[in-house]
Amino acid sequence: MINVEEAFKILSQNVGANASVNMDLNAALGYVLAEDVKSLIDMPSFDQSAMDGYAFNFQEDINDYKVVGEVAAGSSDNPQLKIGEGVRIFTGAMVPNDANIVVQQEWIDRNENMATITQEVKVGRNIRLKGEQIQQGDIALEKGTLITPAGVGFLTGLGIAEVSVVQKPKISLITTGNELVKVGNGLEPGQIYESNSTMLAAAFEQYDFKNYSMTTVVDNYEATKENIHEAIQNSDVVILTGGISVGDYDFVGKALQELNVEQLFYKINQKPGKPIYMGKKGDTIIAGLPGNPAAALSCFYMYVLPTLHLMMGKGFQGLEKVALPLGEDYTKKGSRAEFLKARIKDGQLFVLNMQSSAMLRSFATADALVYIPASTTNVAKMEKVDAYRLR
Amino acid sequence: MINVEEAFKILSQNVGANASVNMDLNAALGYVLAEDVKSLIDMPSFDQSAMDGYAFNFQEDINDYKVVGEVAAGSSDNPQLKIGEGVRIFTGAMVPNDANIVVQQEWIDRNENMATITQEVKVGRNIRLKGEQIQQGDIALEKGTLITPAGVGFLTGLGIAEVSVVQKPKISLITTGNELVKVGNGLEPGQIYESNSTMLAAAFEQYDFKNYSMTTVVDNYEATKENIHEAIQNSDVVILTGGISVGDYDFVGKALQELNVEQLFYKINQKPGKPIYMGKKGDTIIAGLPGNPAAALSCFYMYVLPTLHLMMGKGFQGLEKVALPLGEDYTKKGSRAEFLKARIKDGQLFVLNMQSSAMLRSFATADALVYIPASTTNVAKMEKVDAYRLR
Repeated sequence: MINVEEAFKILSQNVGANASVNMDLNAALGYVLAEDVKSLIDMPSFDQSAMDGYAFNFQEDINDYKVVGEVAAGSSDNPQLKIGEGVRIFTGAMVPNDANIVVQQEWIDRNENMATITQEVKVGRNIRLKGEQIQQGDIALEKGTLITPAGVGFLTGLGIAEVSVVQKPKISLITTGNELVKVGNGLEPGQIYESNSTMLAAAFEQYDFKNYSMTTVVDNYEATKENIHEAIQNSDVVILTGGISVGDYDFVGKALQELNVEQLFYKINQKPGKPIYMGKKGDTIIAGLPGNPAAALSCFYMYVLPTLHLMMGKGFQGLEKVALPLGEDYTKKGSRAEFLKARIKDGQLFVLNMQSSAMLRSFATADALVYIPASTTNVAKMEKVDAYRLR
Repeated sequence: MINVEEAFKILSQNVGANASVNMDLNAALGYVLAEDVKSLIDMPSFDQSAMDGYAFNFQEDINDYKVVGEVAAGSSDNPQLKIGEGVRIFTGAMVPNDANIVVQQEWIDRNENMATITQEVKVGRNIRLKGEQIQQGDIALEKGTLITPAGVGFLTGLGIAEVSVVQKPKISLITTGNELVKVGNGLEPGQIYESNSTMLAAAFEQYDFKNYSMTTVVDNYEATKENIHEAIQNSDVVILTGGISVGDYDFVGKALQELNVEQLFYKINQKPGKPIYMGKKGDTIIAGLPGNPAAALSCFYMYVLPTLHLMMGKGFQGLEKVALPLGEDYTKKGSRAEFLKARIKDGQLFVLNMQSSAMLRSFATADALVYIPASTTNVAKMEKVDAYRLR
């Protein structure tokens, strides 16, 4: 049995980034750039007015200018201006070559075709110079950058329609367990509603891994093995829930051995989720999550999500880690590390009731998972602890 | 001109939650419950084994038990057990009525049909009692709860397939500006690539508002008015970019007046994004964002996102607000409040270069918007400031 930090390290060492793929920029939100992106144009691509006002061929000793025309945004007009002449101009419009200033209209007295500047101004005012944000051929966004809405806007503005990004992982989810019944059916004695697949699918959706498939297999060795084999062929990550333990009906472990999956680790000194398995075959990672729903979800967030992030080029990331004071004393029983469902109130963490690995009730309204390391027994009120934020 | 806090207050007072709608639980991730959800079953719905091991009709003075059968997970078997008898049992399986303990197999010596308990144990061990997590008819999740992956799992486990949630807003995005050209086309002098619509669409996607449509209108009064009129009929939120200022070619303001849109505010004492407009017609909110992309996105995050959150029942939320120390001294020029693109490094905020409202370059790699109130001029290094986290 290894500890939590060892598990993190093993994953970092064994999971690599996927290959790159070209993608429409509009679809690439949330992906990581596989290559530097260079600007196709100067931005702005012409000297641009930053205001609604007047562009003048300005000299410091002249206050009154003759207005000889107008340049609207989008216009290619480039009227010639003598010293002492100007044009009406609008935000975003091209500043005439002969103009050296734009004065906002609030600072102008307009009288027929004359415009008088009413404040002290300097050459260059309100002109966004060609290429001042970026020049053609410069790196706009570096390899490794996560594409955000602002990034989409920035690159679109540079004329870029397609980018090379790290492919996100393809996930196969296999749920095992004869006791599981799909919602909508009646519940016979001994049966429970299967919730791990809908829960994990929701987690994939929430963290934007949309490329996944789901299968349910009965507790039967051949069927289990065949399903896992096929999933390994077709996916970057195979997630199994249930079936990885010492029970006589748990066929997953045997099937993985038979399929020559290399074990990365089995069992972590933690609560919930001790019986988690992670293995590897080729570039495919196989995660065997506990069948208990709260344990399965906890293990997904702590070990599978960072695996998915490593594959998509984000590095070992997972949930956001924060350090916050605990709102009440906490005493840990036993020698395992704990991930505790908690809520954040006024910047403090409050551990919820119902921490059992079988119980999702507290998880459903939790804001964070508080991490109590194996070596810690008592945490005093207001002592800072690490916690992992849930969205 | 109002200040930032007044704008927040006006929105809180003028934007209400949408009507509720019934939805498949699997599609309801990220929605807010419009009604309490009650459990359809006891959970667990039977006394359930928490371990792989043995269920006994146990007495404290007996260590050796005769194994008379087996109960697998999912089985409805309920074998009769005399005192001193037991069955092999697996995690999740129904504990026989006659059994009062489950001992994990690691604590058992098995010898033919006899099982010997090797550790001190107590009645009730490893049995999850019927209804201990929740009982039929109890409230599982309260009205107002945001549905998380754990929530989906929890409710699925209770047999719930459909929930009543607050509908998310329907958005119409209207982009104006004759200078705008779609990426893929050549750029004539004076023209720029239209990026606000792709940028804002990416922001809708990132914050999970998928119900949106986008239109581009040329700078023409009648076309602008007609488009806005139609959008108001068909949407909860109409977002306009560009066209709300004093320029002679800005038709949006006139169109809104003509359409009897009630102005909530116009202009906020802030940088970027001073010329933001918010209005209301019936239950529809109309947001006129500045045309400059960084100003438009900043205003989206600070004013439109909270509006969308109010409509979907989350209350006034928007980006997550944190208080972090500034990594360097900062001096604000002028009397407007500022939202500054910043990166977070080692828990400190570093304000980026290129804060111009026309420049998305810094926004594209920013982690947060630092808020400097209008009344603040100097912030010293390591002084805490409020910041709004970007995803």
